[in-house]
Amino acid sequence: MYYLVVKQFMRTLKNLDAIMGKAQASAEARKFDVNNFCTERLFPDMLPFTAQIRIACDHAKSTAANLAGKEPPKHEDNETTFADLRGRIAKCLGYLETLSAKDFERTTPDTAIKLPDRPGRPGPRLRAEEYLLARQMPNFYFHVTTAYNLLRRGGVEIGKSDYLGTLETIEG
Amino acid sequence: MYYLVVKQFMRTLKNLDAIMGKAQASAEARKFDVNNFCTERLFPDMLPFTAQIRIACDHAKSTAANLAGKEPPKHEDNETTFADLRGRIAKCLGYLETLSAKDFERTTPDTAIKLPDRPGRPGPRLRAEEYLLARQMPNFYFHVTTAYNLLRRGGVEIGKSDYLGTLETIEG
Repeated sequence: MYYLVVKQFMRTLKNLDAIMGKAQASAEARKFDVNNFCTERLFPDMLPFTAQIRIACDHAKSTAANLAGKEPPKHEDNETTFADLRGRIAKCLGYLETLSAKDFERTTPDTAIKLPDRPGRPGPRLRAEEYLLARQMPNFYFHVTTAYNLLRRGGVEIGKSDYLGTLETIEG
Repeated sequence: MYYLVVKQFMRTLKNLDAIMGKAQASAEARKFDVNNFCTERLFPDMLPFTAQIRIACDHAKSTAANLAGKEPPKHEDNETTFADLRGRIAKCLGYLETLSAKDFERTTPDTAIKLPDRPGRPGPRLRAEEYLLARQMPNFYFHVTTAYNLLRRGGVEIGKSDYLGTLETIEG
């Protein structure tokens, strides 16, 4: 299951990148700078669009690395433009593409995954199953959806099929 | 895995219900009618809060029923208040609680799941694995997150820990 989820995260990141492409075309047609979206927030004390993309990428990257027992690559949080953010997605996808089903073979539902340390105390540990289903998946889709919502609220013409992408149907 | 995901959807629906409880307390403290949230939308042509809750519930219900090879119960879309919507969540949870791991034992990744018919053509079929990972999970979290975002944008003091709930850590 672990590798399947990583592949699904890759699909969703590709969908998110395509949605950002539509936002660029929309901004161009409406004659404003698409980078204005980078600092958009749904509410003043919420994280801006830029952070939504970074965190979505980081959840995908750390889910894959942790479940494969590897150290995730470090990606600096230094993006200031839409092009930078699409580059961040591409870097994340580049890393995920280096992994294969084999990398996840030794992980069981009970494998302990350690979360990052917090100030003054070590990070807690979760069973792999709990880590994936209760923390990483809801978190990943939370940030992708919030990024989508920011663009959608900004008048970009996107719909659920952009978010889900093309589903593989059974023919016949 | 199927039953685990259903249990996770139940946790998330309970978290969503608790978030709605916080919204009620917040509206009371700020002296406005919490039901005003029911018609809130992020953008004029997006679905309102009420629809986000209904659709989140329906995705949870149909995921469970389809993967268990059962007919989901019909829940009418007639809610007009916050209390009604929390009742809808309770009804959905009531149905999900009737299911157990045993109900999902015969489902394999290749089991065909038929999607609802569309005007003029039959619904496509998806492999259970594709149905769950690529359609139902992203959709479910999409609507829960959008409901959360509507309340959060409305000044309700909620955070990621309300959305995720309490994670089960490994002790020691």
